[in-house]
Amino acid sequence: IMADYSGIAQQFTQFYYTTFDENRSNLAALYRDHSMLTFESASVQGTSAIVQKLVDLPFEKVKHQVQTLDAQPSSGEGGIIVMVTGALMVDEEERPMNYTQVFQLLPDGAGSYFVFNDMFKLIYG
Amino acid sequence: IMADYSGIAQQFTQFYYTTFDENRSNLAALYRDHSMLTFESASVQGTSAIVQKLVDLPFEKVKHQVQTLDAQPSSGEGGIIVMVTGALMVDEEERPMNYTQVFQLLPDGAGSYFVFNDMFKLIYG
Repeated sequence: IMADYSGIAQQFTQFYYTTFDENRSNLAALYRDHSMLTFESASVQGTSAIVQKLVDLPFEKVKHQVQTLDAQPSSGEGGIIVMVTGALMVDEEERPMNYTQVFQLLPDGAGSYFVFNDMFKLIYG
Repeated sequence: IMADYSGIAQQFTQFYYTTFDENRSNLAALYRDHSMLTFESASVQGTSAIVQKLVDLPFEKVKHQVQTLDAQPSSGEGGIIVMVTGALMVDEEERPMNYTQVFQLLPDGAGSYFVFNDMFKLIYG
């Protein structure tokens, strides 16, 4: 299975941003109570705090566009580290913003993965 | 110790880029034979392949400037995931390039850390 970490990373990333852009409260299923999110350097832990943070972001419409995706196996536990760079557009704003996001996915013991680490940062420049 | 993952991440990052900019062959001490580097989406594994990749980069002078640094504990094994965004200038080029880089640090069993995962990507836009 680990030989396909790159395919898993791609599937996860597509699912994550599609869900984020459609209805970000549905991302709850991807986190666990020990998961961590650092969003623009503010950190929260646990599914409910993470989803609340995402739902409270000050925009209604959002569209992510992934530009690059790299992945590596993260440990003997079967984890995967995913690094994304991309652009996002919010509401009626016409200029996309660049961002980078890092996930560590861990096996959930039932054949799938959950997000243990999640770090998001806008890139200015 | 894990409570200070943020301080460790900062110390590591400062040491890493200082060493990179002074003499990047000295980064060998930070990797192990199972370490992985994905540099601009090209992957190599092991200390010697990683250092060769870094030494072969087509510039002589380089200066990294870290702009943001976020860190989270990565696992029960005492690992730390570090996400950096920054800018770098090479040789006589006057325009800095934006980049993002992700490390997973793991304890080396002797009170310090080594780099298990390393992913580097330039950001255009």
